[in-house]
Amino acid sequence: MKFIRVDMTSKKVRIERVPQKYIGMGGRGLIADLINDEVPARCDPLGPENKLIFAPGLLGGTSLVNTSRIAVGAKSPLTGTIKESNAGGTFGDAAGRLGITAVIIEGRGAGDELFVLRIDERGEPELIQASDLKKKRTYATVVALLDRFGEKNAVVCIGPAGEMGLRAASIQSTDTKARPCRAAGRGGLGAVMGSKQLKAIVMDLRGNVADTLADPAAFELAARDFAKAVRKNPFSRDVMPEFGTAGLIAPVNSLGGFPSYNATKGVFDGWEKISGEAMADMIRKRGGKTTHQGCAKCIIRCSNEFVDKRGKYVTSSLEYETIWSMGGMTGIDSLDVIARLDNLCDDIGIDTMSTGVAVAVAMDAGYKPFGDGAAAIEMVEQIGKGTDFGKILGNGPEEIGRHFGHHRVPVVKGQSISGYDPRAMQGNAVTYATSPMGADHTAGNLICEYVTGKLDPLKVQGQVEASRSSQISMAVVDSIGLCVLASPVLSSPEGAEAFIRAINAKLGSNLKPESLEQMGKRILSAERKFNRKAGFTNKDDRLPRFFYEEPLPPHNTVVNISEEDMDKTLDF
Amino acid sequence: MKFIRVDMTSKKVRIERVPQKYIGMGGRGLIADLINDEVPARCDPLGPENKLIFAPGLLGGTSLVNTSRIAVGAKSPLTGTIKESNAGGTFGDAAGRLGITAVIIEGRGAGDELFVLRIDERGEPELIQASDLKKKRTYATVVALLDRFGEKNAVVCIGPAGEMGLRAASIQSTDTKARPCRAAGRGGLGAVMGSKQLKAIVMDLRGNVADTLADPAAFELAARDFAKAVRKNPFSRDVMPEFGTAGLIAPVNSLGGFPSYNATKGVFDGWEKISGEAMADMIRKRGGKTTHQGCAKCIIRCSNEFVDKRGKYVTSSLEYETIWSMGGMTGIDSLDVIARLDNLCDDIGIDTMSTGVAVAVAMDAGYKPFGDGAAAIEMVEQIGKGTDFGKILGNGPEEIGRHFGHHRVPVVKGQSISGYDPRAMQGNAVTYATSPMGADHTAGNLICEYVTGKLDPLKVQGQVEASRSSQISMAVVDSIGLCVLASPVLSSPEGAEAFIRAINAKLGSNLKPESLEQMGKRILSAERKFNRKAGFTNKDDRLPRFFYEEPLPPHNTVVNISEEDMDKTLDF
Repeated sequence: MKFIRVDMTSKKVRIERVPQKYIGMGGRGLIADLINDEVPARCDPLGPENKLIFAPGLLGGTSLVNTSRIAVGAKSPLTGTIKESNAGGTFGDAAGRLGITAVIIEGRGAGDELFVLRIDERGEPELIQASDLKKKRTYATVVALLDRFGEKNAVVCIGPAGEMGLRAASIQSTDTKARPCRAAGRGGLGAVMGSKQLKAIVMDLRGNVADTLADPAAFELAARDFAKAVRKNPFSRDVMPEFGTAGLIAPVNSLGGFPSYNATKGVFDGWEKISGEAMADMIRKRGGKTTHQGCAKCIIRCSNEFVDKRGKYVTSSLEYETIWSMGGMTGIDSLDVIARLDNLCDDIGIDTMSTGVAVAVAMDAGYKPFGDGAAAIEMVEQIGKGTDFGKILGNGPEEIGRHFGHHRVPVVKGQSISGYDPRAMQGNAVTYATSPMGADHTAGNLICEYVTGKLDPLKVQGQVEASRSSQISMAVVDSIGLCVLASPVLSSPEGAEAFIRAINAKLGSNLKPESLEQMGKRILSAERKFNRKAGFTNKDDRLPRFFYEEPLPPHNTVVNISEEDMDKTLDF
Repeated sequence: MKFIRVDMTSKKVRIERVPQKYIGMGGRGLIADLINDEVPARCDPLGPENKLIFAPGLLGGTSLVNTSRIAVGAKSPLTGTIKESNAGGTFGDAAGRLGITAVIIEGRGAGDELFVLRIDERGEPELIQASDLKKKRTYATVVALLDRFGEKNAVVCIGPAGEMGLRAASIQSTDTKARPCRAAGRGGLGAVMGSKQLKAIVMDLRGNVADTLADPAAFELAARDFAKAVRKNPFSRDVMPEFGTAGLIAPVNSLGGFPSYNATKGVFDGWEKISGEAMADMIRKRGGKTTHQGCAKCIIRCSNEFVDKRGKYVTSSLEYETIWSMGGMTGIDSLDVIARLDNLCDDIGIDTMSTGVAVAVAMDAGYKPFGDGAAAIEMVEQIGKGTDFGKILGNGPEEIGRHFGHHRVPVVKGQSISGYDPRAMQGNAVTYATSPMGADHTAGNLICEYVTGKLDPLKVQGQVEASRSSQISMAVVDSIGLCVLASPVLSSPEGAEAFIRAINAKLGSNLKPESLEQMGKRILSAERKFNRKAGFTNKDDRLPRFFYEEPLPPHNTVVNISEEDMDKTLDF
């Protein structure tokens, strides 16, 4: 249990004991409190007062499966709100096994140098000059870093987009094969890292000083039961390894909620060509991997390796949200083009979702025709090169909308929606509008409820309650470090029960299911408190006008949630 | 007394009786109430809910000298606050003489047409298709409009910058020689006009149905006495006709408060080459006009006509703030280059101050060297052409600072400061920070107090009080329609007394000097009320960090006004 605190102004690094008040917290929940306590809410997100926090989940260093997420937090330059964005890979697990509760990056240097934070196998931190990595893309950055520090390291790093301070810049995280293909993509946290002049953190993978468990035997039992529940769950057992998250394309499209051609249609003409089924076929034929373990401690194996016609690696992992943003939204129906765009974004260090949506907004504004894959690649390449247009695009859909004077910009608090149109899925409208994070599917996605028929996506009734419940649950999931794709197991009694037992065995606590609900509410309230201090009010918890005014085919519905209902969602 | 209300959604135009509650109000004060009553504070400034209001001052149509300003108001796309920006020329007087209290532009059309609002000599409004004027610069626009509607018209119009929705776009107003060289420059109101698809308003100059005066005889007497006071005032009698506002360059520079090289120095090396004295010499030698009447009813004649070496018109009127922003800030010491930049900005329809400061920020960030006139001209030309870079630049200094990741961006609430460095003039720091309009010298400039030695510009003492008093006074001045350059006369007893008598004779009221103070406070409070609704708090009433941290040579001072003092300024 230690904080590694890095002052980029003085270049001093120190290890701190975790203050009592933060003990028993991790990931998103810890970030919510730390940001509230240490970051002035009105500060410039790219100024010295902001702090960038890397925190594994509470169960990050343990043997519980699928808890290797690394949560990254700061005040977001994209949304202006508090922001937590988490990534898979190996970094969160490595941090947990070194007993690191959080790495806190603060201050800001004067010059234009660049640094790398190295944390060795004893958990000792060191800040190292690394100006030779300037403007390097992420794949090359990781190669250079592993060359220098050895293969047994996890890396989080930024690409040129983060160095340039672009508001859609991501932080990339290495997977089990040391590829920076996992991303904390949302909220422009890569720009915050760039503003701190920090190119990368290199964390030794060989740590074995994880925090002690209050009851190791009970923990092992709980962990075994939890893994069993994950293995039993049809979603994580069948759908995910077969198609990955791309398995969602067919059902979302058939629900008429797959935002296409910059959210002017809810069904994509070429959906079959970019579906999870088509992708699995293609990868199989070309000798790629339709499933593999991308993240530490993962037993779901949703990840894939997309290869080109000659069987050469293009990207990993090609997922639903990227196929949607770079495919459906832009009208591009070629998986090869989409995979190339995914890899480009990872390499440049920019959010695939914001970027795909920004490209779609530009196309909708008449800049290029929908479906023009070569144009999309050229546009994204401009981000990497830092041309004037590239920088505008890299600042996300709102900026590109302003540039073209275009009104149809599907963002909330400046951040793009995800691949679920709020007009066809009214509960996701509630989540987009009210989440303290801006539009974000991982904050409370109701797609499982819709696909399983538990909730009618077009009716108003029940949506606010479902969004609230999902947002509360996700706040907990993101604090424990659990992967969102393992989280459906929590709706099964045995999964939920094993999960709580694991937490209790870790903390020596006696939490009940209601305690987790309280935890989630407390986290959301802390996040909302920060946003209030930063100047946000209920009036900001709204979708853009066109979602209320332009009916989405084929259902021809608009968002029908009232302002009063929106305001009740998180008003605990 | 009538409102002309133009609905750009339905393209309907109607004349309304002014509701009782607005009677006796004009200009900025009227705008404050109308915007509060009719514009949702959280609306998108470029969306259909915003309204653009043109209102002559309360004494606009009368014979009182120097009251021909036209106030323009809306929610600003640059600052996000309420905004009033006023311009000289002939439009305000023409509106007053047609008995028009305000022209209110609302809604927004769907297509990409462009319109002109024509108001004939009887005050009858008509909305006319004018898509042939698309992308036309302002000088050519005025020529085309006067060709069509006759010479006897005043015009306010936008250039390409306003059509493109750039956040520093101005609204240009024709002077007595029908040149669109007068500007409502601040707050990006040209972008609001563009968002309404309104290219221009053409107002007949021959109106003679001004609102009746309660006591015409008393008004004539008051007007005569007021004119006498203006003629007697040394500032308006001697300095203004001789050098225009450019006469301020020498004294501000000698006070060490002339922000130069992007506000890294308070004295400009080449100040003598761009001073009012140098300009007057140059104009005289070339056969231009060092003084002429640019605005209706003006007896001060601060305006000039700058000509090139061959005696050919370049621009009118080359004023202090433009010479500062395009000269001192950019390090350009050639009046010929500065005059060309002034004309370019007028022609493109973009604020000279925001643009000069944006150019300076780009230079400071290393994009081009300070002092490179050709580069500055090329950069501003890019705004007119609407290149990617041009659009970034045309969105003002904050956007260009973000583009280059540069920290030294002298703006408050997104709007550039004016030619008085707040570190060398602590009272202007108070005005910049606390004005409901963002940084704006016309909101409460204390330069007269500093030049006359009434107040020590470097001491904290007395600054808050002086700024408060000046801000209150300017709110009144901008509501009556009086030119800021005539306003120093209000500090003389006979000037102030004649001014109040004129207002009383117009309204049949019995106002006292304290009543005017109440009026000013009420207007400022209304403006602050709107900003509060829009989400602003005291925390936004701050200068950028560098003004508190980077001492300004030669005095090597920083801004020393405490946050508590800032917050007391307008807390009536």
